[in-house]
Parts: sequence; C-alpha cells; structure tokens
Amino acid sequence: MQFQELDTPAALLDLARVQRNIQRMQEKMNRLGVKFRPHVKTSKCTEVVLAQLAEGAQGITVSTMKEAEEFFAAGIQDIVYAVCISAGKLPRALALLRQGCDLKILVDNEQAAHQVCEFGRAHDQQFDVWIEVDTDGHRGGIDPAGDELIRVGTVLQQGGAKVGGVLTHAGSSYELHTQEKLVALAEQERAGCVLAAARLEQAGIRCANVSVGSTPTAFAAEHLEGVSEVRAGVYVFFDLVMHNVGVCEMDDIALSVLTTVIGHQPEKGWVLVDAGWMAMSRDRGTANQHRDFGYGQPCLLNGAPVVGFKMISANQEHGILAADDSTHSIDLIKAFPVGSKLRILPNHACATGAQHEWLNACEAGGNTTPWKRFRGW
Amino acid sequence: MQFQELDTPAALLDLARVQRNIQRMQEKMNRLGVKFRPHVKTSKCTEVVLAQLAEGAQGITVSTMKEAEEFFAAGIQDIVYAVCISAGKLPRALALLRQGCDLKILVDNEQAAHQVCEFGRAHDQQFDVWIEVDTDGHRGGIDPAGDELIRVGTVLQQGGAKVGGVLTHAGSSYELHTQEKLVALAEQERAGCVLAAARLEQAGIRCANVSVGSTPTAFAAEHLEGVSEVRAGVYVFFDLVMHNVGVCEMDDIALSVLTTVIGHQPEKGWVLVDAGWMAMSRDRGTANQHRDFGYGQPCLLNGAPVVGFKMISANQEHGILAADDSTHSIDLIKAFPVGSKLRILPNHACATGAQHEWLNACEAGGNTTPWKRFRGW
Repeated sequence: MQFQELDTPAALLDLARVQRNIQRMQEKMNRLGVKFRPHVKTSKCTEVVLAQLAEGAQGITVSTMKEAEEFFAAGIQDIVYAVCISAGKLPRALALLRQGCDLKILVDNEQAAHQVCEFGRAHDQQFDVWIEVDTDGHRGGIDPAGDELIRVGTVLQQGGAKVGGVLTHAGSSYELHTQEKLVALAEQERAGCVLAAARLEQAGIRCANVSVGSTPTAFAAEHLEGVSEVRAGVYVFFDLVMHNVGVCEMDDIALSVLTTVIGHQPEKGWVLVDAGWMAMSRDRGTANQHRDFGYGQPCLLNGAPVVGFKMISANQEHGILAADDSTHSIDLIKAFPVGSKLRILPNHACATGAQHEWLNACEAGGNTTPWKRFRGW
Repeated sequence: MQFQELDTPAALLDLARVQRNIQRMQEKMNRLGVKFRPHVKTSKCTEVVLAQLAEGAQGITVSTMKEAEEFFAAGIQDIVYAVCISAGKLPRALALLRQGCDLKILVDNEQAAHQVCEFGRAHDQQFDVWIEVDTDGHRGGIDPAGDELIRVGTVLQQGGAKVGGVLTHAGSSYELHTQEKLVALAEQERAGCVLAAARLEQAGIRCANVSVGSTPTAFAAEHLEGVSEVRAGVYVFFDLVMHNVGVCEMDDIALSVLTTVIGHQPEKGWVLVDAGWMAMSRDRGTANQHRDFGYGQPCLLNGAPVVGFKMISANQEHGILAADDSTHSIDLIKAFPVGSKLRILPNHACATGAQHEWLNACEAGGNTTPWKRFRGW
C-alpha cells in the first residue's frame, strides 16, 4: 500500500534513511577498529535489527528479557542485557542460556553480584556477567576508580561467575550540543571504562570486553583505544533530540507519524490533527534543548519540514499544530484543509516507536510493508 | 498468581478501588438524573468496561475506530466516537453500522460535515452525527453561540445525515484545583452545550442528545439541566493529576506499576528501579500542578505511599527514586535493598496504562488475573 493511503495515525519508516544511518554508524565503527553492538530497544523490530547485522554489527544490546527472547528466537545468539539484573529475572536468563543463547548479564553492586552467584550455583550455571561502571554520573554504575569495582569483581569471580567485561553508557551526552563537549565526554566515557577494565585485570580478574557508547559519543569519539565494542541505539532512526545534539540533519530522521487534519481553530491559528500523544508519545525531550519542537515537527508528505510550525500540544488522540511565531506568513489553515495529511517528526524515536504496533517500512516509491514491533517485558 | 510474584515491571489494578470509583461516579450521575457514558480510552479493557456497564453506565465513548470495533465485538452497541471524523475513517464507520453497531460520529466544521454527507449518499447510509462545541477554548469544537454551528447543522440535515446531538469536553478542568472554579467550569460546560442544542432546535434542527463531561467537571457539577448524558474516562482508575485537581484521594488511585529495586547511588540518595518511562509513560502531567510528583509516587506493596519520595527521573527501563527533600529522615537505600519491590502511582492513568499489554487485576487477597488491554488505531 502507498503510504499516503494508510489509516492515520501511522508510523512510517523511511527505508533509505534507515539504511544510510546504519551505514554511517558502521563505517565510523570500522574506522575506529571496534565491534559495533546496536541497542535494539529503539526498534524492537526484527527487520531493522537484521539490517544492522547485515551491515556488520556483531551481536545486540537489549533492555528487557523480552527483547532477548524475541531476538534469540529470530536467530541472534550474542546478546548483552544492559540493565542491572534483579534476581527475579534470572530464571528467564537461565532458560535462554540453556537454549544456547550467548547471553551476558549486568550488575553494578555487590548485592546483585551475590544474587547472581547464588542462583548460578543453585542451578549449576556459570553466568557471563559484565560490570556496569559510571563514567558521567547520570544514572547507574560503579565508580571505575573506587574499591567497590574490585569488590564486585571479586564477589563474582569467587562466587563462580565469569566476569566477561565492563560496560558504560554516557547518557548525559543527550544534554550536550557542541562538538567540543561531545568529544570530551566520549573520551571521558572511554577512559573511565578502560580504567575499570585495567583495575580489574590488575586485581587478577580477567576482563575481556570493554563496552562503551551512546549515539552522540559514538559519533564524537576520536579514538577508542582499549575499547572492544561500542553500543548505540537511536542512531538507526534518529530524532529531533539528536538533531538538537548535533549528530544528524533533519533529513536523516527516518521515523515519522502520518496524520490527517481533522479541524481548525482559525482565530488561534491552530490545525487539529489525529495524532495525539498516543501516536507521538508524551516525550518532550527537546523542551530543555536549544530548540523546543513541542511534540514534533510537521512535514509535508514529501518529507520537507513545514518550517516555523510545530505540534504545540497533544491530547490522547488530538494534536494541535501552530506557528512558532505568530507573525508567520503561511496560512496554515488554507494550506492544510480538513482531510489533508502531514508527517510529524518525533522528539524521541524510541518513545514514539513504542506507541506503535506496526512500523510501515516505506520504499523510495512510497510503497509500504508493515513491520511488526513487539513490546512488553 | 500473587501480585508480588509477577515479573517486573507490571501494571496492577486494585479491583476494590476500581469498583469504588465506578460506583462513586455512577451514583453521582444517578443523583443528577443523567445517563452516564464512560470514555473507554482510559482502560481499553473489556473487563473494566463491562464492570462500568454493570453498574449502570449506558453506552460508551471511544477515541479510536479500533476501540469502537473491539468493544462492538465484545457486545456493546451504543458507541460515540468522540474525535472529529476524517473522511478516511468513514469506511470503517460504515462497516460497523452495517454490522448493527449504533455508532455516532462527530464533526466540528463544515468541511467534515460535507465529507460525511457525501460519503453517506454515495453508500446510501444515514450517519448519526453529533456536533462538537467548544465550551472552554482548550482544543476543538465550534462556538456554541456562533453562526458556524447552525451552518454545520444545516449542512448535515440538508445533506442527508441525522443530527443526533451536541457534545463538549471541558478538558481545561485538568488545570484547576479549587472546588469553586471546578463548579464554575462545569456550569460553563453545561450552559454552552445546552445553548448549542437550543440554537439548533430553534433553527429547525432536532438535537436529542446533549453530551458533556470530563472527570473533574462530572464530579463538580451541581445540576445538569438540559443535559442528557455525561462522559468521563480517567475516574475509573484515577491518578496523581486527578489527585492534584482535588477529585480523588491518593488511596483512590487504582492503577500502579510494580517494580523491583535494581541498584543505588548512595551518595546521591538514589534508588534505581526497573520501571522507566516504558512502564510509566513519559507523562509529566503533574509538572505544572501545585505538587509535582516527577514520574510517579512510590508506595509500599501494601499501597501506602512512601511519603516524601518520588520518581525524579526515568530512562527507557530505569527509574530513579529520591527524596523530595534532601533532609528527609528515611534511609531509602537501607529501606529498599536490591531485589525489594515497590508500587508506583502514575501521573496519568491513560498514558501509563497504554504502555502495558496486560493489566493485572488484583483482588483483596493479592491474587491477580491478567486482563488484556488492546491498543492501536
């Protein structure tokens, strides 16, 4: 079906952009001489992930056991579950390992390390455990320079687990927007993770994998000495947050939401559309960046942004489009009559994608194929 | 399964609270002498909607064609699709009517009215069309006192459609938090909608249904003279936004997200949990209210709020809990070790519920039954 004919709202994937984004990241990783392990939480879609692997990615990163199970069922063995494990999830991890999945799990504290070892011994299973280190203070992870790192490594090694590596994610890179600061954070992320690995090795704990990454730091990194692999997720679709960070152009954004105009409030200059937060998500990731896109950037069907307009407000199934600047010269209401269609670029591709069961993969000629996206835990 | 044993994150529905909320609204509507037509976009769950109908609700309100189709398949005939229709959705509306569904559709402009009439004539189908009026300026709808109302009614009547009623939604009630203002807005909503109906009748356009409502105005209304029915959605679960508006107590909130502690950052006073925005949604509806709950209010497993703490930040699968006030006396980290569980009350039940495929209906003894929640358009 041609994309213009889809019932609205509908998620569209521009396949040429997806492929270009995949190639750009893989080429960068090849130049830096590291393995690339995409984070599949962005798409949760087999077709997208197979395209990443076909271009040279090695293994995947997941954020839920469901992702691990779904992608293992799709034939992918090499999987890092990059959220600190809790004991309640170990039976599902064990089941995957017993089926032949090369699953790596994560801990960032002694309690979790003890729980993994205890469960492993009880089930005669050596888990491959990576240790999360904190290189930018934004969320979880252990100080790469502190004593806790060695304690956790020791608990794992003495408890019968295999310490497979160290892993970090400099998620604070999303808050930056200058090349200089991004380069500095990428180096901080690299250096912290390499330090953690070296300290574990010095303590007699073998640490084969050194895993770093976020989309902005992956693009900013000038060298990755001591790093074995990079992880990144959102680069595959990109979004307005990444555009504000400065790592993509507007026309690299591969995900958009097709919507239909359903009414107007002429005195206010409002165009009402049938994509609300259920279709766009409630993500307001650009709110604190240098350019606030509201709930998204409206574009014509050919993908050209309607410059100066944004989705200023969203209810569950209503979006309101209006000018950024009330002196704008385009008559939005005349330009977009009831029944006309637009495409809205999202703030955050992971969040907007998650609102949709189907990603309509759109070829250059406009023909679409529905690609299933799964969800849940 | 007992709710504590569920894999996390998981959505929990406290059935006793759901039932109490349903009864409270139905009793209020019975006292006011109006029909009650719940908005099912909050739950999208058959079991919840059947409980609303069992208590006396008459018909349902939907926000998507998918809801209309799913609930018609579940045996519900009387359905108002309360988003202005676009021509692209008329074939699905027609299919429902042809199967015996008593579907009412909505327009708020002449273009849409013409499109409905044209499609109806082409398919020999008289649509039952309600006209949306704007009583608080927050979104769509026609001025109840203006000429456009009569023009739209005339287009419909002359074009072969049936004008079934007028409908309004004073959604700006979510921004209020005093009884006085809520009462005034409820009266404004009522008076505007009644005026619209009277003006249509004067113009010779029969207008049998006068439909108003939002959860806050439904509870605030002192009388509903001239109104035939009230619609409300979120009251069935309630949430922190509604608590801030003042229409429910914290212990009326029936939806929560069960989560497991996965780590800590002791120096920062942070507790990391496995419910991020994927489980809570990105809704920050309390951000501009008098009390900001961040991404949600943590509670003990017995439902008691952990006073003074909130989810201050959320990534896709990580939530960060911390004290509102750094001088707080509870040692959160000691109180909530790795592996312990909490329940998080949501800002916005419609948005948080939408993140979940299953609502785990929890009886007084803690036993749960998974109730399916559908999504999509």
